[in-house]
Amino acid sequence: MYISYIMRKKSSKIRDITKLIKPEVRRLKAYSVDETPYRIKLDAMENPFPLPDHVQQEVAEAVKLERLNRYPDPSAAKLKESIADLWGIGTKRMILGNGSDELIQLIIIAFGGPVLIPMPTFAMYEITSRALAQDVVTVPLKRNFTLDAGKMLSKAKEVKAKVIFLACPNNPTGNRFSNEAVQKILQKADAAVVIDEAYFSFSGKTFLSVLKDYPNMIILRTLSKIGFAGLRIGVLTASAKLIDALNKVRLPYNINTLSQAAAVAALRRKDVLNRQISLLISEHHRLYNALSQIQSITAYPSETNFILFRTEKDATHIYEKLKEAGILIKNLNKPGQLKNCLRVTVGTPEENEEFINALKKL
Amino acid sequence: MYISYIMRKKSSKIRDITKLIKPEVRRLKAYSVDETPYRIKLDAMENPFPLPDHVQQEVAEAVKLERLNRYPDPSAAKLKESIADLWGIGTKRMILGNGSDELIQLIIIAFGGPVLIPMPTFAMYEITSRALAQDVVTVPLKRNFTLDAGKMLSKAKEVKAKVIFLACPNNPTGNRFSNEAVQKILQKADAAVVIDEAYFSFSGKTFLSVLKDYPNMIILRTLSKIGFAGLRIGVLTASAKLIDALNKVRLPYNINTLSQAAAVAALRRKDVLNRQISLLISEHHRLYNALSQIQSITAYPSETNFILFRTEKDATHIYEKLKEAGILIKNLNKPGQLKNCLRVTVGTPEENEEFINALKKL
Repeated sequence: MYISYIMRKKSSKIRDITKLIKPEVRRLKAYSVDETPYRIKLDAMENPFPLPDHVQQEVAEAVKLERLNRYPDPSAAKLKESIADLWGIGTKRMILGNGSDELIQLIIIAFGGPVLIPMPTFAMYEITSRALAQDVVTVPLKRNFTLDAGKMLSKAKEVKAKVIFLACPNNPTGNRFSNEAVQKILQKADAAVVIDEAYFSFSGKTFLSVLKDYPNMIILRTLSKIGFAGLRIGVLTASAKLIDALNKVRLPYNINTLSQAAAVAALRRKDVLNRQISLLISEHHRLYNALSQIQSITAYPSETNFILFRTEKDATHIYEKLKEAGILIKNLNKPGQLKNCLRVTVGTPEENEEFINALKKL
Repeated sequence: MYISYIMRKKSSKIRDITKLIKPEVRRLKAYSVDETPYRIKLDAMENPFPLPDHVQQEVAEAVKLERLNRYPDPSAAKLKESIADLWGIGTKRMILGNGSDELIQLIIIAFGGPVLIPMPTFAMYEITSRALAQDVVTVPLKRNFTLDAGKMLSKAKEVKAKVIFLACPNNPTGNRFSNEAVQKILQKADAAVVIDEAYFSFSGKTFLSVLKDYPNMIILRTLSKIGFAGLRIGVLTASAKLIDALNKVRLPYNINTLSQAAAVAALRRKDVLNRQISLLISEHHRLYNALSQIQSITAYPSETNFILFRTEKDATHIYEKLKEAGILIKNLNKPGQLKNCLRVTVGTPEENEEFINALKKL
C-alpha cells in the first residue's frame, strides 16, 4: 500500500511556518500532565469508585451492540434523554460536549472575548480563551473567596465583556458564591453569564429552575465528577434561542458512539450513582473535620468533592512529601491568594484515611 | 437533591444576548442531518462492513477493563503506538483529534485565516473557518476537477492566506490532485499546507515520506473511512516544531477512554481491516464500471471509497427516487461545477448491486 512520492525540493528554503501561528497561541505553554507514579490519586476530582461489576458488564454489553463503522448519532438523542431523566433538563435545550472543555470552547468561539472571570477559578476558562486569542480579564475574589459582584459588573462594563464564567461551586476554592452576588450579575451584566455547575451533585444547588428568567444565562454540567470522567460528556443548557445559535458552532459528530452507549447504560443505574455520591458527601464531611483538626492547617468550607486547604509550612514541600508517599493531590501554591494552598479530592474512605495519616506525620 | 433558588427578577428586562454572538456565527446555518429512514446508507463514506463477531468481542473485552471514573490518558499513548504501527507515523509527531473535524478546527484556531481552499472540496474546511469567524477564499478547480496550482498560489499571496487545505484525494470529487500541483503549492506557499489524506487507505498514495522536507506541511488521516467512524479518531502529523505549537491548542482530554481502548483492540486485527479495504477497492472498480456503462451518467475517476457522478436528468429527482427506494446517497446538485452531481459511497457487494439496479430503472 505504501507507494510514496519521490519529490525533490526545488526551492532550497521552505518557510518555517511556526511564526505564522497566532502570537497568543505561541505564547501559551503546552498542557503538561504530572507523570509521577502514584498509588492514590486525589488530584482531579474524579469519583474514586469504579462501577460495580454488574454495571460494568451492562456497559460492555451495550458497547458490544454498537457498530463502530457508522458515524455516531450527531444529536446523541438517547443520551440526551438519559440526561434529561437524570437532571430534568429538556432535551431540546441541551447541547452535549466532549467534556465541559469543549462547551467552554464553543461558548468562547461563539461570543468571543473579552472573557471575564473571578480569580482564582477553573483554569480552563483562561487557557481556552487565550488559545482562542481572546482577552481575559480577571477580578480577584474577596476574603474567604467570596464573589465581588460590584467589581465584576463594573469591570464587565469597562471592558465590554462578552462572556462571564462563574463556577458554582467554584474550583479550586470549593465554596459556592452567594445567590445574591450571582443574581446581581445575571440581572445587570450585558454579557453571557455561564454558571458552571460541575459540582452540582455535591452542592445540591442549581440555577436551573430560573433558567427561563435569564435569557443571558448558560448552565454547564458534566458527567465527569460523578463517575464518568473517561467518557467526556459535558452538558450545556440555555434558552432555546441560545441553544440554536450555539449549536451552529458545534462539530456535528462530537460525541462518539461508545461514550453515548456507555453513558446511556450506566445512567440506568441511578441507584448506584446516588449511593456513591451520598458516600462521597459523607466522606467529604469526615475529611473536612479531620483536616480542620490539624492545627497547622486551614481547611476551607466546600460544597464539592474536594477541599482546599492552606498550610502553615511550605505547601510545596508537603505536596512533594505526599507524592513520595504515593499520594497525588493538587499543588496550588503560588504567591497571592493561593499561597501555601493545596487541593485534595475526596477519595474512598481508605484513601482519605491514608491521606490524613500521611499529612499528620508531616 | 433539587434544592433550587427562588430568585425574583428585579430588573424587568434581562438582555437578549444572542445579538452579542459574533455576526459570522449568527449567519451560519446549523448543521442538519437527513433523518429520512433508509435501508441502505451510501452517503457518508463509511466502511459498510461491521467488525467480525470475534473482533467485536475483543473490543467489548477491552472496554470492560477500562475505568470510566478516571480521566482518559491525555496523551493517548497506547493508541498512538497502534497508529504508528498501522501507518508508520512517529508517535512524537502525532496529534490525535476527536475526528479530523477537531484537527481542522485546531489548525484554524492556531493559525487563523484567511483560509484558502479549492472548490469544490470537503465542506468542513469552510464551515469550521466560518464558525471561527475566519475568512475563507476559494479557487475553483479546473476541468475534470484538477487543481489550479498557479491560481491557488497567486490567490494565497494576494489574500495572505495562513492555511491552505488540500484534500488528497479530494472529496466530493474523488480524484487525487497531481503530485506536481501539490508540490508546487508546498514549495511556494507562505502558509500552512494541510494535506488531508482521509482516503489514503484507498488511494495508497501519501506525502508522509516527504514530511521532513516540508516544515510547512501538515498531514491529516482518519480512522473513520476504514471502519471506525463511530470512534472519532483523527490523526495529524507534521514537523516536531509544529506539533509542539499545535498541541498548545488541543483540549487535554480530547480522546475519551473507550475510543482509545476500542481502537487499540480493533487495530490489532490489521488482517481484518486489510481484507475489508481490499474488498472495497475491488467493489469500487465494479461500481465504477457499472456506473460508466449507464449512458445518461458520467462517472468521475476516483481513488477513494466513493464515486461522484453526473446525471443527464435532474439529479435531485434521482436522489429523491433512490431515497424513496430506501437508498441514501449524497445529493450535491446545485448550479455550477456540481450541477446534477451525486455522490455514492461504495457499499457491500449486495448494496452496490441494489443501488445500480435502482439507478438503472430511473
